[in-house]
Amino acid sequence: MNRRMILYMVGQVCEITAVLMVLPLIVSILYRERCLIDFLLAITVALVIGLALTFLSRPTSKVIYAKEGYIIVGLSWIVVSAIGALPFYFSQQIPHYIDAFFETVSGFTTTGASILTDVEAMSKGLLFWRSFTHWIGGMGVLVFLMAVVPLQNDRGMHIARAEMPGPTVGKLMPRLRDTARVLYLIYAGMSVIMVIFELAGGMPFFDSLLHMFGAAGTGGFGIKSDSIASYSPYEQWVITIFMLLFGVNFNLYYLCLHKHFKEVLESDELKTYLALFLISSALITINTLSQNVSVATAIRNACFQVSSIMTTTGYATTDFNKWPEFSKGILMFLMLIGACAGSTGGGLKVSRLVMLAKNVKRELRHLIHPRSVGVVRFEGRTVDDQTLHSVSVYLALYMGILIAVALLLSLDRFDFETNLSAANACFNNIGPGLGAVGPASNYAGYSPFSKLVLCAAMLLGRLEIYPLFLMMTPSIWSRSS
Amino acid sequence: MNRRMILYMVGQVCEITAVLMVLPLIVSILYRERCLIDFLLAITVALVIGLALTFLSRPTSKVIYAKEGYIIVGLSWIVVSAIGALPFYFSQQIPHYIDAFFETVSGFTTTGASILTDVEAMSKGLLFWRSFTHWIGGMGVLVFLMAVVPLQNDRGMHIARAEMPGPTVGKLMPRLRDTARVLYLIYAGMSVIMVIFELAGGMPFFDSLLHMFGAAGTGGFGIKSDSIASYSPYEQWVITIFMLLFGVNFNLYYLCLHKHFKEVLESDELKTYLALFLISSALITINTLSQNVSVATAIRNACFQVSSIMTTTGYATTDFNKWPEFSKGILMFLMLIGACAGSTGGGLKVSRLVMLAKNVKRELRHLIHPRSVGVVRFEGRTVDDQTLHSVSVYLALYMGILIAVALLLSLDRFDFETNLSAANACFNNIGPGLGAVGPASNYAGYSPFSKLVLCAAMLLGRLEIYPLFLMMTPSIWSRSS
Repeated sequence: MNRRMILYMVGQVCEITAVLMVLPLIVSILYRERCLIDFLLAITVALVIGLALTFLSRPTSKVIYAKEGYIIVGLSWIVVSAIGALPFYFSQQIPHYIDAFFETVSGFTTTGASILTDVEAMSKGLLFWRSFTHWIGGMGVLVFLMAVVPLQNDRGMHIARAEMPGPTVGKLMPRLRDTARVLYLIYAGMSVIMVIFELAGGMPFFDSLLHMFGAAGTGGFGIKSDSIASYSPYEQWVITIFMLLFGVNFNLYYLCLHKHFKEVLESDELKTYLALFLISSALITINTLSQNVSVATAIRNACFQVSSIMTTTGYATTDFNKWPEFSKGILMFLMLIGACAGSTGGGLKVSRLVMLAKNVKRELRHLIHPRSVGVVRFEGRTVDDQTLHSVSVYLALYMGILIAVALLLSLDRFDFETNLSAANACFNNIGPGLGAVGPASNYAGYSPFSKLVLCAAMLLGRLEIYPLFLMMTPSIWSRSS
Repeated sequence: MNRRMILYMVGQVCEITAVLMVLPLIVSILYRERCLIDFLLAITVALVIGLALTFLSRPTSKVIYAKEGYIIVGLSWIVVSAIGALPFYFSQQIPHYIDAFFETVSGFTTTGASILTDVEAMSKGLLFWRSFTHWIGGMGVLVFLMAVVPLQNDRGMHIARAEMPGPTVGKLMPRLRDTARVLYLIYAGMSVIMVIFELAGGMPFFDSLLHMFGAAGTGGFGIKSDSIASYSPYEQWVITIFMLLFGVNFNLYYLCLHKHFKEVLESDELKTYLALFLISSALITINTLSQNVSVATAIRNACFQVSSIMTTTGYATTDFNKWPEFSKGILMFLMLIGACAGSTGGGLKVSRLVMLAKNVKRELRHLIHPRSVGVVRFEGRTVDDQTLHSVSVYLALYMGILIAVALLLSLDRFDFETNLSAANACFNNIGPGLGAVGPASNYAGYSPFSKLVLCAAMLLGRLEIYPLFLMMTPSIWSRSS
């Protein structure tokens, strides 16, 4: 266990956080807001901790293994959230530190669950920072670090594997730093295009930027109490389409840039993802027509909500808590699945769903023809048994955590539907749930204990369980191993 | 595909059903009830169909493979339920055939979900038949057939594997017929002992017998509107303990008979099962004390309900729908797990839970030490990768079916909690759920379509998915393969 290296990397993450907070600082200066002092304070704290860590624990050996990778990622995300919460707390716009921490974890993990009862009362600088955490968290804090700071290749791989979502990690370029840079370039490029489309519809620049942060990171923090409902149908469609695009595996965009369109069109995950979107939207449209809305509105709301939920963004154009049970059931199911691997979205991931389904099919074939040797193919390649096995184990862990979180929440004062959907919405990084945590409501009513449980759920969901889970295993901390 | 053999075996099952219906016929004669005619009619129908099938499709070859085994089991259970429903329908004590079918499927699958609004109005003969289906279904219709009719050994294995619950099937004796007989002997012996204990507390003989059927089969049909609540604390404790005993793997009783106590005490599954019982009961006791009951009552109700739910019986001594959310959450979690493999109980099974947990542990170790080769041990033996893989695949199928059933139910008029818990309670063969299908209520309010969905869920749960699932695969029916 290379403890010095772990602390050194966490220190670097603190420094990066300080640098990133300069952007909201500029915003608060532009808008002449009082919270600029709070940002200055927070930046100072981040720099002091960061410099102290990097200075005191300059590593003697730079070698790290898989387990150091997990711990670096797990610790970094906790520290970055703890520091990111400071401006909210210093400004007293969120009076309790646990609430501020909840809001920041929710931001970085791209969940979008909020404890704010009146989001429109918040200052512009803090609103900017709140949404900007989505944008950073979407692609990953350490991936950002890797794009900026040089790292040895094998060293970085352990970290990338721990931070990037999905059952396997694609290496687009031989050098990891280049991969990280290409990913951030695609991400930034798409973000700029989205803002242009929003501006074209007449959305103010500040609003466009913040909604882009929320959609790109598949986060979902809005700046209005009614989320996206008050914007024009055009803007709603723009956001629908971009949420969907940010939920696609970024490797496919890289392939598009290199004109490998055939591979993209044949992607099992993409096909399933789009099929899920179309079928769910169609079913919900038909189902919600009973509620006296026009066909156009029903289609728009259904597509928006399906895109928002399946990409785990969490924006809302309507209070889907009031939809018929069947439509709510579809959304609950989509919450579990989530977006594509290698995207900014959360959830179990479509690729895992596809692999599980193929696995089931193979098992059924094996039962009918016991001597058949089935092979599972995914994205044109044979999937090895270890990966299939890992996917199945992941499902077991995933279900276990979901149940544990829902059970812990049931100690609080809400009903079953609220607790299960809160666990679901936080663990899958969606944001709004059903019942008392529905889109027209917020998480302020939970106790501090429940809020911490939900913070853990959000981090477990974003980091795909293992980093935090392994951090809690005592044996991993032993000096010898 | 040996179709003649399949029809021949199904015919034999019809004949056995006719024979079994003689018992309730005798009851209705003893009580001088009108429904004796309905039983005579039903027996005639069963015999005609049975004899026609066995006569017309006397097989030329007796060879059957795994897939014939699954189809025989799947078909038999549907046919036995369709015939078993006739007395209820003929007597018009259940006026609609779908309701009668629901009640009978619920009986044979040992679910105990009822559509009856007034169970006390039913005649003794039909009440006896209703509860007796639990007793037959608990150990298995085809296992019963095998204990009576001679079958080639390898032929029977395919059927036993398809009907008996759990990830692996234990062969207690070299000859399958002997295994089936030993199982039924243990089962009958324990049933007799339970009745004696009940009689000792002053319960009438008829009540004792029927409650034994419900507890032994882990079914849960009661004969009073308030289930077990009106019986004395002594009787409640007797039922608590016997439900728990019938939820244990019967192989362990066989080992006890042969004085292999060490193996029994070291059983991973038994230890986990008892630990789950004790911890859940303790947590619920503490949690329900807030509702102004005495400590003794709280302990008794908690132990009774935990035993009833985790063995998937479904008896109730109190309306647990009114318990605090945390206690309801624990019950919901226990519903998912269910009893031990090789018992009469349903659910995912404790053995699968243990294997999944060990699988997760191995995966975590593999992540920290990528070169380690982990071995999973269960009940003192190494579990091969194929079994571990099957358990994981089973979990995926299990979750998929649970979600699909809940989604189909949400087309009906109830709320989320009701639908999810109805899907859960039927698929895991428990009986009462929460909300509108809670212990103080019943399933009468669902539409005929929803009832058929729930019938499918009960059969899928009891037969552990594969027989029914494979029956719906078109390729299995091709004559050539």
